[in-house]
Amino acid sequence: MARANLLIGQSGGATAVINASLVGAVEAALASERVTNVYGMLHGIEGFLKEELIDLSRQPAELWPRLRETPSAALGTCRYRLRAEDLEHALALLRRYEIRYLLYIGGNDSADTLHRLALAAQDCGYELQAISIPKTIDNDLPLTDHCPGYGSAARFIALATLDSSLNTSSIPWHYPVKIIETMGRDAGWLAAASALLKEDESDPPHLILVPERPFRQSEFLARVEAIQRRLGYVVIVVAETVRDESGRPLGSLGALGVDAFGHPLLSGAAQYLVESVRSQLGLRARFDKPGDLQRMASAYVSPVDRAEALLVGRQGVLAALAGYSDQMVTLQREEGPVYRCTTSLAPLASIANEKRCLPAEYLDESGTMITEAFRDYALPLLGELPPRYAQLAPIKVR
Amino acid sequence: MARANLLIGQSGGATAVINASLVGAVEAALASERVTNVYGMLHGIEGFLKEELIDLSRQPAELWPRLRETPSAALGTCRYRLRAEDLEHALALLRRYEIRYLLYIGGNDSADTLHRLALAAQDCGYELQAISIPKTIDNDLPLTDHCPGYGSAARFIALATLDSSLNTSSIPWHYPVKIIETMGRDAGWLAAASALLKEDESDPPHLILVPERPFRQSEFLARVEAIQRRLGYVVIVVAETVRDESGRPLGSLGALGVDAFGHPLLSGAAQYLVESVRSQLGLRARFDKPGDLQRMASAYVSPVDRAEALLVGRQGVLAALAGYSDQMVTLQREEGPVYRCTTSLAPLASIANEKRCLPAEYLDESGTMITEAFRDYALPLLGELPPRYAQLAPIKVR
Repeated sequence: MARANLLIGQSGGATAVINASLVGAVEAALASERVTNVYGMLHGIEGFLKEELIDLSRQPAELWPRLRETPSAALGTCRYRLRAEDLEHALALLRRYEIRYLLYIGGNDSADTLHRLALAAQDCGYELQAISIPKTIDNDLPLTDHCPGYGSAARFIALATLDSSLNTSSIPWHYPVKIIETMGRDAGWLAAASALLKEDESDPPHLILVPERPFRQSEFLARVEAIQRRLGYVVIVVAETVRDESGRPLGSLGALGVDAFGHPLLSGAAQYLVESVRSQLGLRARFDKPGDLQRMASAYVSPVDRAEALLVGRQGVLAALAGYSDQMVTLQREEGPVYRCTTSLAPLASIANEKRCLPAEYLDESGTMITEAFRDYALPLLGELPPRYAQLAPIKVR
Repeated sequence: MARANLLIGQSGGATAVINASLVGAVEAALASERVTNVYGMLHGIEGFLKEELIDLSRQPAELWPRLRETPSAALGTCRYRLRAEDLEHALALLRRYEIRYLLYIGGNDSADTLHRLALAAQDCGYELQAISIPKTIDNDLPLTDHCPGYGSAARFIALATLDSSLNTSSIPWHYPVKIIETMGRDAGWLAAASALLKEDESDPPHLILVPERPFRQSEFLARVEAIQRRLGYVVIVVAETVRDESGRPLGSLGALGVDAFGHPLLSGAAQYLVESVRSQLGLRARFDKPGDLQRMASAYVSPVDRAEALLVGRQGVLAALAGYSDQMVTLQREEGPVYRCTTSLAPLASIANEKRCLPAEYLDESGTMITEAFRDYALPLLGELPPRYAQLAPIKVR
């Protein structure tokens, strides 16, 4: 293909390392003689349809190393589902701006968007290399070992659970039950990460509630009571999307009713559990809900995650330049005792709108604790960890 | 005074640096020829009354540098209010264990505990040097420039607000209103810290709700609506203890009613604001509630805070050895352009059960934003900050 312009965008929820993917892609694009200009769409495909483009070829060179370390999506993102009439408009704009290389950093929905654009281009004979660059803290994309963004969010959840639980265990009878609410859409990858630094069976967290398993209230309360009796306190991690056996999200249960305007009052999964434990077991409970901090906290970025985010960005551009299209860059873990990932490609048709949940072997029989297999899988993604915390030796006074 | 034993305890809510104070104190005690043994009470005065003591003189030497970096209270804490009959028992135990130096790391309530013990010892002629070492993320102790623990929690809140807001601003129309709930008891020091890295009037956070100012619903909603129209999104930081004009906590308002067991359903301040904004302005809103993470996150420790925590621990022991009693170590900021604190002492009688709220000059006329005076006060406590985040230049495509 002759020289042409390259367009890149970011989509969906931002992460702490999605800018590293942008930087990896832009650096590869700027280094190629096949790329005339590098354009960025503001707010993803939604902005592109409104011709909200900026020129990435003419940014100051010193920007890129700094942007690599900056959390969130520097181009802005969108959550826009393409309508049929958008496809034609998008193709007209690709032609007008002489764009032949199209890179889109995002998750499942973004893969779907790019897939539809790739098919539309093919249908009308417009030569376009469309490559998706994976990104999601939810880690729910198929055909890749894991997703850039997950390692940093998992590191946050693992360390946050460790740190926050220390407050509960320093005075267990004050609030004997601590709930921590994580994100993760329909998959429990983030909630599961909370136990990655647990060393002993009695260490927190003690129960992990993931969306893959239906919530059973009486079983849950019985286990909380038993753990509290044995250890003096209980730390529970719950994914915000956990549902009961009828498929109702925990946050919509309880006697919350409607507000003065008739709108239903949703409490959130953690709030629901706090109220359940308090009213039915008589145990004081409170919750932490780190919210967007888990996707974005710059102080918890996994160096492994950031390096891989950069890598998939670069490899996406190289794949497009090599003539691939309608593919997503994937991470493939190599066999062997030392963690190492290389990249490959997978067809977008197999990725768009698919999701990968926690496989059965990553949860133990109770469904509320991770296995060694999950630890082996996820721990390397967190990068080098801070030193272990010190504990006083229980040396009695003579 | 002849050689005697030294006893130290930790009390109240743990912090990310309260162990640094313990290490500072123990190292000073171990270095003194006047101290025979160094004992630690498990779970503060509550544990001491049950003779739950451990020997800190015989811990492995390599423990102390590691413990200095470990968040939470290694000795465990308590929230125990001494009863009259406890005083006599405590004095009998001090005699039995030949303790003449008593150090207690904590906040207002802990100062009260120590003050009562000091008076009781004086009353019965038992020579005791009782010194309080300040600690609280709430920063509400009087007579000290600030409290160890606050700098790290403030750093957490400032950086978390910056990071989390980036997710909202990357796609403002998805959830245009973000609420972040902080701790702080009756004082707005932590909520105020959320704006320390705000550079421009349009930067988040846009509104800060502190307990020092009553919440006015209609005024609040009008301002949220106006900011959302102007900027496209609104970030609001609320202290969990904010009350309305009748003195009712926000978390107890709303149509939450009672649960199936007749217990009142408390929503929390952030949840209440989310519902208010959603039902009355029709704006999608969500909240982050970092909870105990703000007091404990090891990744956000302020190096200034940790150094000062160590310092007040050491100075507490030196004051006791020098014959002072019934005093708390305070931090005194020196005049001049470069931040520097030294220590002094203040009588416990002036500290116990007193609290220091945000002074009027630290909030602007609206009562919902900090002033430059607060920034000058608080910013040095955060320690050196990570580099500023990069932004793409809005260079149009030619």
